[in-house]
Amino acid sequence: MRILVGYDGSNQSKGALELAKKHALAFGAKVYLVTSLFGENQTNPEEIAEAEEGLEFAKKDFIDSGIEVETHLLIRGLTPGEDLVQFAKEKNIDQIVVGVKKVSAVGKIIFGSNARHVILNAPCPVLSMR
Amino acid sequence: MRILVGYDGSNQSKGALELAKKHALAFGAKVYLVTSLFGENQTNPEEIAEAEEGLEFAKKDFIDSGIEVETHLLIRGLTPGEDLVQFAKEKNIDQIVVGVKKVSAVGKIIFGSNARHVILNAPCPVLSMR
Repeated sequence: MRILVGYDGSNQSKGALELAKKHALAFGAKVYLVTSLFGENQTNPEEIAEAEEGLEFAKKDFIDSGIEVETHLLIRGLTPGEDLVQFAKEKNIDQIVVGVKKVSAVGKIIFGSNARHVILNAPCPVLSMR
Repeated sequence: MRILVGYDGSNQSKGALELAKKHALAFGAKVYLVTSLFGENQTNPEEIAEAEEGLEFAKKDFIDSGIEVETHLLIRGLTPGEDLVQFAKEKNIDQIVVGVKKVSAVGKIIFGSNARHVILNAPCPVLSMR
């Protein structure tokens, strides 16, 4: 079994990592830890370095738990939602883990557009958490 | 661990049952199999009998797989989305499994309002599938 988890360094995606870990252990699954940046003029070198660092940090936790893990930094002109769906298709992923909560400008809890895209378009079940 | 799965007899919710079974086996979890009807003048006796029959049928499959299972037919004036969220809180559910796909009147795939409500309001992670 292959579990894909989207990671963007936010507290919410840290929760997604914990959840992915729990499921990877229960299913004996391999984890694909993915950060998506748009690239082109929307992404600067500092963001790329930060994302690489974040992935390495997150990876360590899976290795320490005895979970097989691959990290991927995707920079290919796609939104994170599009990237996760496409990656899931490319790698025959069995389950995606994402955070869904986004707080609007007026403080209301709304559906993150990336999570929404993943849930509606993923080729596999999606485990989401607020 | 306690897994709640919403069942309404649709093909899509049959997929949710399969997924719940897979997860219950991996986690050694107990399954709460729930059908929600609104009640009052929106629900007739035939629908209630059909729902009871559906739950019994679905329950058998879990028992045959050696999974501990409880069925609940909720008729308390709530939408299925509200019912699942409230039930999850009442029973300290650890994971909810729901189907998300709904086909609109013009054939477009849209987000089911009950699934949307559950994903945004559940007290626990939600596993969804199209």
